[in-house]
Amino acid sequence: MSIGIFDSGLGGLGAVRKLHELCPTQDLIYFGDTARLPYGTRSAAAVRRYAAQDAAFLLKKGVFAILVACGTASSAALPALGEQVNVPVLGVVEPGAKEALARTENGRVAVLGTQGTIASGAYERAMHALDASVQVTSVACPLLVPFVESGETDSDVLRTVLARYLSEPLAAGCDTLLLGCTHYPLLSEAIRALAPSMKLVSAAEAGARATARLVASVGLPEGEGKMELYTSDFSQGFETLAARFLGDVGARFAQERVAVETWN
Amino acid sequence: MSIGIFDSGLGGLGAVRKLHELCPTQDLIYFGDTARLPYGTRSAAAVRRYAAQDAAFLLKKGVFAILVACGTASSAALPALGEQVNVPVLGVVEPGAKEALARTENGRVAVLGTQGTIASGAYERAMHALDASVQVTSVACPLLVPFVESGETDSDVLRTVLARYLSEPLAAGCDTLLLGCTHYPLLSEAIRALAPSMKLVSAAEAGARATARLVASVGLPEGEGKMELYTSDFSQGFETLAARFLGDVGARFAQERVAVETWN
Repeated sequence: MSIGIFDSGLGGLGAVRKLHELCPTQDLIYFGDTARLPYGTRSAAAVRRYAAQDAAFLLKKGVFAILVACGTASSAALPALGEQVNVPVLGVVEPGAKEALARTENGRVAVLGTQGTIASGAYERAMHALDASVQVTSVACPLLVPFVESGETDSDVLRTVLARYLSEPLAAGCDTLLLGCTHYPLLSEAIRALAPSMKLVSAAEAGARATARLVASVGLPEGEGKMELYTSDFSQGFETLAARFLGDVGARFAQERVAVETWN
Repeated sequence: MSIGIFDSGLGGLGAVRKLHELCPTQDLIYFGDTARLPYGTRSAAAVRRYAAQDAAFLLKKGVFAILVACGTASSAALPALGEQVNVPVLGVVEPGAKEALARTENGRVAVLGTQGTIASGAYERAMHALDASVQVTSVACPLLVPFVESGETDSDVLRTVLARYLSEPLAAGCDTLLLGCTHYPLLSEAIRALAPSMKLVSAAEAGARATARLVASVGLPEGEGKMELYTSDFSQGFETLAARFLGDVGARFAQERVAVETWN
């Protein structure tokens, strides 16, 4: 049985990379809804509808569990989606929130996310449910996904935009920065240059770790370590961007095992 | 009979505003595919599929003609879409190209567009078909739609981004700048500040003028000057953004006549 992962686009491949690192013998099936990204600016109703369709696509492939590797979809569609399907559904919000709480030393955590994610308040709620005393500074970052999507992960303009988004977390004295969108880890270097003392937590990687724990706890039989990659659109720059998220793992997968299929 | 207008989002409302100004007694039906915007980063195949669905939505409402008020959809789906439906279909590329050629004095025109539009080469082809000697400088501007969508039409960061996109047109000595995406007219002021000597041509407004000429040429009977507005998603900031594109016209419409319906 495979583990299913979906995201609005290719950002969730960062979670795939981590999951493959943690469970190298498990088979992974990824769906990226590149025909309808970004989810971050949609209404919550639209995101819930899309997430249900994405999950249905993976369920048809016979997955054992689903990781919603998308901050916006995790915020809008969980836990409801988990009740609609008959396999375990994990997201990135709760694992991300837990890791951020485990890492902070001064109890001040900042969350960067899309407009939809921040408007939902999901990360803040998840952290407060675990620790009512934590101070959360939430920042909606509508321009970061477009920067990453257009391949711009280090430039003067990007740094200016980042400096603006980081000003409130820095002023609030946050020691931990939760990257609440799967695209943001590609900006880690630029973020570190502007906020060197902050600990960065990737919600996508936290979601991958939570999925790996589930796999271990149920003793899921080993597979062959294969990956299948599906997207709903095959847009310009697709392979370049996929390779950036997948890193070394991706280079190998991309040449041997990637199957891309249009959907929608 | 109404005139149908569609765009990937709300940018086409700029064309609606101009069309209402030119044909104040005609009824207009607008569809904005806000659930799937932006079209500019999709594959041409996806944009063609979406454009056909958008047109089908308007045809069901019984429109007399359709204006594709979207640079990307005009580039990717025309003229094929016109052959698939039984009403006249106009775009913004050819009218925009014509107006730019009429305005330039030195035969050097710059085109700003989305990645999809610029990759298609549609504006360049349309201009060269009319005047083989025109020098065209085409610039893909992947960050401009996100800026407009997030309501940022004047800031230091935006000016830095614009300066980068305008550097080639300025270096090439272009005297005319064709705004090939319906979102860009909202950035006119910021563009003028950086390139004060350039004549700005809005492809959306050019498309509206071409539509008004068609209406006049066939003697379309007058309606009541009503507008119906449909979108496929009702996302955050929808009304604010719609009001910006519609201007004074919009304020009036928005209070009295707007009907929003979800679709998809």
